[in-house]
Amino acid sequence: MSGKRSRLSPDEIKPKLAALQDWSIAAEKLHREYRFASFVEAFGFMTSAALVAESMNHHPEWFNVYSTVRIDLSTHDARRITQMDFDLAEKMEAIAAKLARG
Amino acid sequence: MSGKRSRLSPDEIKPKLAALQDWSIAAEKLHREYRFASFVEAFGFMTSAALVAESMNHHPEWFNVYSTVRIDLSTHDARRITQMDFDLAEKMEAIAAKLARG
Repeated sequence: MSGKRSRLSPDEIKPKLAALQDWSIAAEKLHREYRFASFVEAFGFMTSAALVAESMNHHPEWFNVYSTVRIDLSTHDARRITQMDFDLAEKMEAIAAKLARG
Repeated sequence: MSGKRSRLSPDEIKPKLAALQDWSIAAEKLHREYRFASFVEAFGFMTSAALVAESMNHHPEWFNVYSTVRIDLSTHDARRITQMDFDLAEKMEAIAAKLARG
């Protein structure tokens, strides 16, 4: 295993995490909770993110209830957080930002 | 509150639950875990179910990781399981059955 699916060290994670506002590490996964205006917006976000995740062959763990979406990203092969998780988190941020701008 | 959004008694729940294979009561919610063949199938199921849920104005709590979808249904107004939850569960069963038939 090498490259984007290699486990990141704590020293590698720290600056990447600092660059991603509103994300944290929880249970060794990259975590964020989004709150949208409605179920339609929340599921719209999930649909866009699902297409991106499938195209990356890198899938989230996520929970939705009404307008809330809770996300945990980790890389099963590496059993930890990798660059793939940060890449997917960045793409999710871009999708959510577009929705927020309406 | 009355009708389909009224809390069901244990005696009312019992036969309805027996009619729904693979569903159980967990933490006072109507619960099922589906396993699909892939993320695309799992998210396809969720997308169909999301449209139904929105049209019913009755939304699930659900968790997805790869091909697994875990669902918990309850009615916030009634703080318990109602006929709406059984109606949504039946619709989810029909969606999943169609996917399984390909």
